[in-house]
Amino acid sequence: MTIQTLNNHSTTKLYSSFSIDDLVQQVDCLIQNTFLEQTASSSVQNICIEAIKYHFDSPGQQVRAKTCLDACMKLAVEYDDMLILAAAAELLHNASLIHDDIQDDDEIRRGQPTVWKKYGVNIAICAGDLLLSTAYGMLAGYSKASLLPQLISTINKQARSAIEGQSLDVLFKNNPQLSLEQYLVIATQKSGALFSLPIELALVAAERSDCVELARKACANFAVGYQIADDLEDIVKDGAHHHVSQCVNIAYVLKELGYKNAQQQSAELCKQYLDQAIQNALLLPNNSGSMLVNLAENLKNKLSIH
Amino acid sequence: MTIQTLNNHSTTKLYSSFSIDDLVQQVDCLIQNTFLEQTASSSVQNICIEAIKYHFDSPGQQVRAKTCLDACMKLAVEYDDMLILAAAAELLHNASLIHDDIQDDDEIRRGQPTVWKKYGVNIAICAGDLLLSTAYGMLAGYSKASLLPQLISTINKQARSAIEGQSLDVLFKNNPQLSLEQYLVIATQKSGALFSLPIELALVAAERSDCVELARKACANFAVGYQIADDLEDIVKDGAHHHVSQCVNIAYVLKELGYKNAQQQSAELCKQYLDQAIQNALLLPNNSGSMLVNLAENLKNKLSIH
Repeated sequence: MTIQTLNNHSTTKLYSSFSIDDLVQQVDCLIQNTFLEQTASSSVQNICIEAIKYHFDSPGQQVRAKTCLDACMKLAVEYDDMLILAAAAELLHNASLIHDDIQDDDEIRRGQPTVWKKYGVNIAICAGDLLLSTAYGMLAGYSKASLLPQLISTINKQARSAIEGQSLDVLFKNNPQLSLEQYLVIATQKSGALFSLPIELALVAAERSDCVELARKACANFAVGYQIADDLEDIVKDGAHHHVSQCVNIAYVLKELGYKNAQQQSAELCKQYLDQAIQNALLLPNNSGSMLVNLAENLKNKLSIH
Repeated sequence: MTIQTLNNHSTTKLYSSFSIDDLVQQVDCLIQNTFLEQTASSSVQNICIEAIKYHFDSPGQQVRAKTCLDACMKLAVEYDDMLILAAAAELLHNASLIHDDIQDDDEIRRGQPTVWKKYGVNIAICAGDLLLSTAYGMLAGYSKASLLPQLISTINKQARSAIEGQSLDVLFKNNPQLSLEQYLVIATQKSGALFSLPIELALVAAERSDCVELARKACANFAVGYQIADDLEDIVKDGAHHHVSQCVNIAYVLKELGYKNAQQQSAELCKQYLDQAIQNALLLPNNSGSMLVNLAENLKNKLSIH
């Protein structure tokens, strides 16, 4: 049964008994079980595993797992494989969060102290490393070995993009001399890569890698919109304080470029990118970009409220 | 052609025109080419890639690449696959070095400033992450997809062991209350895993995974011997200074346990572990553990000189 012969109706029926929330729970179980296994040489729980479990006590919205599950369902990817791919995407994202929090000196994540704040920087480095490794490790259970080369290179490509984006972000922190082009590169590499990965994995699994480039484009546009919206929220939160100007922020970038009403211009730019993301995502096969469309619509609505 | 039908003579002939040093150069090229490719979105070399190239300017002895190449040659693994596996093992080891240097506050590696010392901790975190990801990424080029699940889980298992070992090491730093058992667990997990990985990958590639456990045992014993020898060298270097007692060191562990001549006892213990490693390694098929045997013999000789 190839995906090309399925229409939306029949693929939906295949999974009709599962809600996305049920499936996300299954992904959580898969991740938890991985870290339950003790290593042979030790009967005590390793401190790094403890830190990982602590991190996942507040799992966040699990947007990347949900995006992957939704795309996999639409594309009729096999049940076990779907969970594996969603887990891989979620693990990679959480690896990046734990390391980003060290780099950004962030003390709170999802309402609790960050891993480095609770366990120290050194254990947090180990915890992020182990999540990154485990993301790939998940693929060992994938049912179709013939697809593994492409799945591996998809993860590696987007992980590299995210890491390079984060490196640029680190480089430009406390340096407000950032061009608009550089801002767009950072947002696309850093956030776009890990938004795109879950959809790309679903497309590769469904042997629709011809659409991977389109998913990447959709997510690059979404990531820029997302980043601008996040920056605008920071400005609202920050109020009159000057803190924002020390960080990478679109309003600051546009102001430097001579824009009079940089905040309004930023909101306009944000909308344009989100609209473009929606247009791209709607072209993905079997409505597999529908979760991305919803995310973009929600962001647009939020924007008009501010 | 299966490996079982080959004797040492014929496998050696297959690669007769290559020396290990020639092959290591090919592995270097493979690694360098991976980081030469620019990402699509940027024409400038990313700072993280710059840091990685800087790190590899002093490549070290490349023991893990050599161990892998030697075992692969003995086991008649295909040429391209052999380079891929050696590169993966070497990348993973170097990822661990870059992160370990941050964690251990080490400022010099292979005679030059460590990556974190030159580029800052945040870029060094990114550089280690990218090497870790690229180790797995190498597998995308592997010729036999059917072996990928086992190769992936082999890397993941040993990466996890190394990360857990490093976490314990971090935990016990500046805490001299370390039992002999804990000392052995740390040495086995931290160093043993990444010594064993190159041989394990060769065995899996040659469809001799029945011998993976033996390789692991040999390398666990070797790692303990290696760690004790390293500790003894630290004592010689450190002379009368008290610095050693703040670090995990076998002589200190034995002294705490009431041994009178802890340094000599440590040397005895070291020899025992190295002998055991040699015994195990000699049992590996087609002489695939010969490089490990040499390493252990060299360490024993060095020990008797001190």
